[in-house]
Amino acid sequence: MIFIPAKIGYLTISLLISEEEEEKNILKKIKSLGYKICQGKIGTMESKAIIASIETAAKREGIFSAGCYREEHALYHTILNALRGLCRGEIGIGNFLRTIGIKFVVLRGPLGGTSTDSGEWISVGIYGTIGAPIKGFEHEAIGLEINNI
Amino acid sequence: MIFIPAKIGYLTISLLISEEEEEKNILKKIKSLGYKICQGKIGTMESKAIIASIETAAKREGIFSAGCYREEHALYHTILNALRGLCRGEIGIGNFLRTIGIKFVVLRGPLGGTSTDSGEWISVGIYGTIGAPIKGFEHEAIGLEINNI
Amino acid sequence: MIFIPAKIGYLTISLLISEEEEEKNILKKIKSLGYKICQGKIGTMESKAIIASIETAAKREGIFSAGCYREEHALYHTILNALRGLCRGEIGIGNFLRTIGIKFVVLRGPLGGTSTDSGEWISVGIYGTIGAPIKGFEHEAIGLEINNI
Amino acid sequence: MIFIPAKIGYLTISLLISEEEEEKNILKKIKSLGYKICQGKIGTMESKAIIASIETAAKREGIFSAGCYREEHALYHTILNALRGLCRGEIGIGNFLRTIGIKFVVLRGPLGGTSTDSGEWISVGIYGTIGAPIKGFEHEAIGLEINNI
Amino acid sequence: MIFIPAKIGYLTISLLISEEEEEKNILKKIKSLGYKICQGKIGTMESKAIIASIETAAKREGIFSAGCYREEHALYHTILNALRGLCRGEIGIGNFLRTIGIKFVVLRGPLGGTSTDSGEWISVGIYGTIGAPIKGFEHEAIGLEINNI
Amino acid sequence: MIFIPAKIGYLTISLLISEEEEEKNILKKIKSLGYKICQGKIGTMESKAIIASIETAAKREGIFSAGCYREEHALYHTILNALRGLCRGEIGIGNFLRTIGIKFVVLRGPLGGTSTDSGEWISVGIYGTIGAPIKGFEHEAIGLEINNI
Repeated sequence: MIFIPAKIGYLTISLLISEEEEEKNILKKIKSLGYKICQGKIGTMESKAIIASIETAAKREGIFSAGCYREEHALYHTILNALRGLCRGEIGIGNFLRTIGIKFVVLRGPLGGTSTDSGEWISVGIYGTIGAPIKGFEHEAIGLEINNI
Repeated sequence: MIFIPAKIGYLTISLLISEEEEEKNILKKIKSLGYKICQGKIGTMESKAIIASIETAAKREGIFSAGCYREEHALYHTILNALRGLCRGEIGIGNFLRTIGIKFVVLRGPLGGTSTDSGEWISVGIYGTIGAPIKGFEHEAIGLEINNI
Repeated sequence: MIFIPAKIGYLTISLLISEEEEEKNILKKIKSLGYKICQGKIGTMESKAIIASIETAAKREGIFSAGCYREEHALYHTILNALRGLCRGEIGIGNFLRTIGIKFVVLRGPLGGTSTDSGEWISVGIYGTIGAPIKGFEHEAIGLEINNI
Repeated sequence: MIFIPAKIGYLTISLLISEEEEEKNILKKIKSLGYKICQGKIGTMESKAIIASIETAAKREGIFSAGCYREEHALYHTILNALRGLCRGEIGIGNFLRTIGIKFVVLRGPLGGTSTDSGEWISVGIYGTIGAPIKGFEHEAIGLEINNI
Repeated sequence: MIFIPAKIGYLTISLLISEEEEEKNILKKIKSLGYKICQGKIGTMESKAIIASIETAAKREGIFSAGCYREEHALYHTILNALRGLCRGEIGIGNFLRTIGIKFVVLRGPLGGTSTDSGEWISVGIYGTIGAPIKGFEHEAIGLEINNI
Repeated sequence: MIFIPAKIGYLTISLLISEEEEEKNILKKIKSLGYKICQGKIGTMESKAIIASIETAAKREGIFSAGCYREEHALYHTILNALRGLCRGEIGIGNFLRTIGIKFVVLRGPLGGTSTDSGEWISVGIYGTIGAPIKGFEHEAIGLEINNI
């Protein structure tokens, strides 16, 4: 099994790009480090659909408590900036005549790495393909944001 | 050993976040798929230093021929957009009072995945930490762009 | 009564955040300084609805003459930049899955303050709440732009 | 004395634009509501100087504990977005051949208003003049960001 | 007849703003230099309609082969950046309550000028009027991007 | 001689890309239509140097009166947005490791075309090359903004 550094961004990216067997190992590792985890997939041409589906999934998985605005706010801005990373700047999907098919991962827990910070952080990773609405006319893209929660 | 899909973005990210033993395996896989590869590290507060160090490394490793403007142009815009991903929007490092320490990877070769495109593509991945110029006050970030060359 | 400096931005912000009794005093002061004034409210998820409602209100209140493109152009760009302030960068409301409820103020008259400029300026201020389309999940935001007309 | 709604953004803006006697009343009100407060002034052509001076002032006034990255991170992004509001989009001062003279306010405490959220928030307000480096060639601008901490 | 330097951007702009007789001369010149040419017009409030109409026209005129993703990708990003030039920053038309009426030109061929680069480039130019959806309330705008293909 | 429509943007672009004999004809035409004209050239890696050189040239040629902030303000924002067109979005030259060599044109006078607007407008056009700081590694770019003054 590969070595997995205990850093929230690293873990998010690893889970995001993992498949089958490897995914199980990474999930086990992430859980053993005490993170709350949420994963999902969406294909869409609307930015707001990505935000809505990540928020809904995160709420359902208990990443944040549904009635807590502070935590919802932290998650919202984390998603928005992960989208900026995915779009490499200005956010635009259907209005730029392109479509996406992505997997997303949300982790909540320690920052990890060399950090001595003892509080909780949230990480949103988005990975998939972005391209013209023509089969095969697409390439990969990734977006990641890490925020205090 | 983990399963590595033959897609330029996937390979770039995998190499970017790999360490030691795993890195060797991924490098072997990438080479066997016919990609040209370039890696490097830089810590800086200047956007232009990141661009310069990736361009210099890519030229030295023969990713593009030094005298070919078309290829240099493709690489330049790929780096610029990978930086937009890393900064999650507007590019700013020292002027935003933050510093970065990153590893970068440049691959040149087939797009891979479900693509039937037979030409060459270039991928630039940047991964590392971004934060205040105070030890430990930093979190991870990633930027990836894929472009025709 | 509080001291109100005779500066177009200051007056715009004061009126924007004032309530009841205070609003009357500020309006009196602004009128006595020779400004044309327009106020309104809107709740929406569409950027264009904000622009349209401010333009319509300003036209109805005679802030600019309906047939004068030069003045409409000045107002339009003032609104657009006030929106950038409200959104803190890239303009996005419903497409970013958020909603706003705002009050707006348009003033037309002297720049004021230490300025010796004798011509007319236009100021657009927008203040209210921005947030998720969930009751109570919102915080305040403000945007202000000042332009020559 | 004017009516001051107990909302973090409203209080930030009120303090930001207040002068002398009024400032004392607003400060008293803000303190009575349990907020931590920090104020300062700076004239500069460098974005990073604004960020540095707000961070330094906030640390000195105990708005956040110097050794806590989570809180520093929340403050940093709040400043960055308040700057986006001030610049009405893309951040640029000296590189856009303009200069600023601003007052800033940082509040830490309840969100207030109709919110039932019981946790702490941080608000950064920046207000002053922005213009050409020529005496009197400047107009007012304001930026405000509110973030969970 | 006027002197026309053999540079892809110059030729694009010249054709873009030419009318009747002059257009015929410029077209002849451009063809004699070996460029593939595509022209069209569109009036719309949607960014994606501009992208779609330029892509469709370019495909029909054989600027790029319909089945080649690499070339479609190069054209797509060239259009997107020409739109950024037209909008002078952030892309927005109907969502900013404005409308456009434009002519577009796509050229494919040598970079020209002092360049010794022997490969092919693509240039997208967009020129027309942008303004409020009120007759006569509009001014001219231009956008140009040049990319390797 | 070519037909030159009497529109401020068209005239700006025509003068911007004209050479020698043609330039004389276009200048004569522009003057006969009552425009104030200013032209210049600059090669630089700094955004602020472009702004400064256009402002200085415009002041020297009497495009605006040196002591009038309203007019300087209109010119400043016109230059800034022309730069956004030139850079196709976010403004960046040396900080993005690229250099420019440009000609600029400033016109002041009627909007022209089908406009019945009787007031004055200002147009700033910038055209030249942008590229890596390597000889021949550059392509053309253009930026245009039109504003009320």
